[in-house]
Amino acid sequence: MNYKIMCRFLSLICIAEAVFMLPALAISIYDSQAKAVLGFAITIGIAVALYIAFKLLSRNNANRLTAREGFVCTAASWILMSLIGSLPFVISGEIPRFIDSLFEIVSGFTTTGASILGDVEALSRGMLYWRSFSHWVGGMGVLVFLLALSPGNKKNEGFTMHLFRAESPGPEVGKLVPKLRQTAIYLYCTYMVLSVLNFAFLMLGDMNWFEALCTMFGTAGTGGFGVKGDSLGSYSPYIQNVTTVFMLLFGVNFSCYYLILLRQFRSVIRDEELRLYFCIVAASILLITWNIAGMYDTLGEGLRHAAFQVASIISTTGYSTVDFDLWPTFSKGILTILMITGACAGSTCGGMKCARILLLFKGLRRNIRQMVLPNRVEVVRVNGRAVDEKVMSGVNGYLSAYVLILFVSFAIICFDGFSIGTNFSAVLACFNNIGPGFEAVGPMMNFGNFSVLSKFVLIFDMLAGRLEIFPILLFFSAGSWRKN
Amino acid sequence: MNYKIMCRFLSLICIAEAVFMLPALAISIYDSQAKAVLGFAITIGIAVALYIAFKLLSRNNANRLTAREGFVCTAASWILMSLIGSLPFVISGEIPRFIDSLFEIVSGFTTTGASILGDVEALSRGMLYWRSFSHWVGGMGVLVFLLALSPGNKKNEGFTMHLFRAESPGPEVGKLVPKLRQTAIYLYCTYMVLSVLNFAFLMLGDMNWFEALCTMFGTAGTGGFGVKGDSLGSYSPYIQNVTTVFMLLFGVNFSCYYLILLRQFRSVIRDEELRLYFCIVAASILLITWNIAGMYDTLGEGLRHAAFQVASIISTTGYSTVDFDLWPTFSKGILTILMITGACAGSTCGGMKCARILLLFKGLRRNIRQMVLPNRVEVVRVNGRAVDEKVMSGVNGYLSAYVLILFVSFAIICFDGFSIGTNFSAVLACFNNIGPGFEAVGPMMNFGNFSVLSKFVLIFDMLAGRLEIFPILLFFSAGSWRKN
Repeated sequence: MNYKIMCRFLSLICIAEAVFMLPALAISIYDSQAKAVLGFAITIGIAVALYIAFKLLSRNNANRLTAREGFVCTAASWILMSLIGSLPFVISGEIPRFIDSLFEIVSGFTTTGASILGDVEALSRGMLYWRSFSHWVGGMGVLVFLLALSPGNKKNEGFTMHLFRAESPGPEVGKLVPKLRQTAIYLYCTYMVLSVLNFAFLMLGDMNWFEALCTMFGTAGTGGFGVKGDSLGSYSPYIQNVTTVFMLLFGVNFSCYYLILLRQFRSVIRDEELRLYFCIVAASILLITWNIAGMYDTLGEGLRHAAFQVASIISTTGYSTVDFDLWPTFSKGILTILMITGACAGSTCGGMKCARILLLFKGLRRNIRQMVLPNRVEVVRVNGRAVDEKVMSGVNGYLSAYVLILFVSFAIICFDGFSIGTNFSAVLACFNNIGPGFEAVGPMMNFGNFSVLSKFVLIFDMLAGRLEIFPILLFFSAGSWRKN
Repeated sequence: MNYKIMCRFLSLICIAEAVFMLPALAISIYDSQAKAVLGFAITIGIAVALYIAFKLLSRNNANRLTAREGFVCTAASWILMSLIGSLPFVISGEIPRFIDSLFEIVSGFTTTGASILGDVEALSRGMLYWRSFSHWVGGMGVLVFLLALSPGNKKNEGFTMHLFRAESPGPEVGKLVPKLRQTAIYLYCTYMVLSVLNFAFLMLGDMNWFEALCTMFGTAGTGGFGVKGDSLGSYSPYIQNVTTVFMLLFGVNFSCYYLILLRQFRSVIRDEELRLYFCIVAASILLITWNIAGMYDTLGEGLRHAAFQVASIISTTGYSTVDFDLWPTFSKGILTILMITGACAGSTCGGMKCARILLLFKGLRRNIRQMVLPNRVEVVRVNGRAVDEKVMSGVNGYLSAYVLILFVSFAIICFDGFSIGTNFSAVLACFNNIGPGFEAVGPMMNFGNFSVLSKFVLIFDMLAGRLEIFPILLFFSAGSWRKN
């Protein structure tokens, strides 16, 4: 392990987080919330001190990085970012227990949106802002952003590529343009533009600027922290529909937007992952609308709630307009499956991603075909291009790691004595970065009652889900820490 | 598809089933159950007529078989066997609806043990015998037995090998001795000897011969149909403990018994799958005993129930001594995971099998190691021998097919409106050939309330689980039926 280079990343994370916290500090000062001001000020102080310490430790680093080191550094950065990010809650006393504030901020950065708070509205505005803003930071990933923009990295394409691979979701991470720096800048611009549009549409619906901002952060990062106790239930249908549309848009692979800019509409329309994504969305909305039709006054209302919930779950956001835990089991079954599929690779979403589901199905079809005609060699194709066998075996390896972690986590969580449905959906909701599950962790409930052990397991699951398992596993495996 | 050879298998299945039904007919005559006698007699007549028809159609068959045809023929044989096997229930009127009797007998042949009957004790003894005997037939698989023993197959090793692969569980199917015929004879002898021992031990516990026979069938085939409403709850602790031991023994890879006969004790003790199996069993028993200790008068009683239930679930038998649906969630969580792992490959059990779990873990460890040291080539080893990469990718392919079928089945079952826990455990219980699940399909409940659609899905799952997915998928894929 190249500790000097790791210190460099950690120093960047510290200073970035100090900067990110300034608006929250400003809001707290404006609201004259003394304790919150203290929380943010002390944390910023600690972050700056850590920045200086790490900066000193990282002097004369050689600027070379293996793929393994990239994975471990990414995991370390996310863990440090969470530890620092949890401090304002603890210091201000708004979330007194450390494990709870860690859970809350990991849930924020990993864009999960699962909360341990019984009463969200009791938090001060500064804390609410920080909580929601963590979604926006975590959505696109912060490390690549920092490295792509920091000076002196122009020669180190391979260097940042490893971090890009570790931080960006999906089975294949490709560059849009030959230079990674350009790719990163383009991705963050798209993210920014869509966020601003979302904010503007919310403002048009007569939302106040603070709530619109926080709601936008949660939508853009597909996180799901709201500022009200009933999530988006009390807002107007217009606000809910705008959010539905933007949740779906943030679930699309961002490279599709790049292709639209290049006017390559045909490639976008023919993109198999995008088609699968919208097919799943449309089918789920229709089935659920039909299933819950009797529960609402008009078909339109049922459709609105169904569309909102489908968009919220498949994009792994986790907002809700109604308590979908009260829906019939068929609808809940569909939502459970959407929890696992997730939206497109290369978006801000969690879950398995449609691209992986597509590859798993195509791999299965190939297996069956090869049994029928054992002598024919067949490659799996997506969008007309052959998929590398390494990617195929990577997807299979991902699935096995996913299933193993899922069941081990489930077994440990069961120890707390909640129902099987609660435990299973809690693990699914955290591991796939969604937020609410069913029963005792349903949309109107929270994760506060779990034991410390369970919370640690769920924190691990959230981080593993966001970083797609292997960076976190490598971080915790002894071999990664050996000298090169 | 070579239809002539398929007709040959189907003819063998018909005549074998007619013979298998004779004892049930005899019992019904002895008990003077007119309707049951009629049921068995008419079914035997139909089976014999089908035998003659298939025999005529299969004349001049060329005796060559591809792997694909072996898979499809195996699936076809099992489906025909189930259709014929369900007739006595319908004709006698003891289970009037066809879908219910099909569910019941598929549950029997696949050694699942899930029942649609509310009151088992209302069945006549002939039917109870037939129901339990189907476990014993399905446990080891019937097709290989028939083909290995029928004359004229001595030259066709490859011929029967394909069927052996399709019908025997586990990621790698190996021959114990160079000749398959010998391997099959040896396996069935072991099965027979263990069954006789089990029967003898039960008789020593003052069980009457009929109940001992039926209980033995259910244990040996790891099926789980009982002859009493409370499964094994009302029997003496001795009977329960004997059953615990034999359920565990039938979960061991039968090749271990062969090695014991050869006095290769060291290879048995060092067998990694066996070690994993017994470690899981021991750990689960300890954890559950500790968790349920307060629920029973003495620690010994808790231990007895815990050991029985762990043995019953991991061997995918499905007997119960108590209503484990009332146990704390932690115990139920452990049982849920045991449902999926299953016991050893090459036994009569269902589930993923310990061998696959071992390969999945080792594959995951290799993935992580290769990330740490990308230039080192590493093979996965089990018992000191390198595992073929084809087997590794086969295990991964199996997992993806398993997960996909699991979730699609779950989604369809959800339509009936039972709770998420019920639906999830119902699919797990059928797909892994266990029997009882939790909540509305718990050990004291039954599957009778599901809709016809759900029952068809569960029947598919049971067959797919028993034949390890691919034979059944090939049977339903159009490409398999094309001319060679």
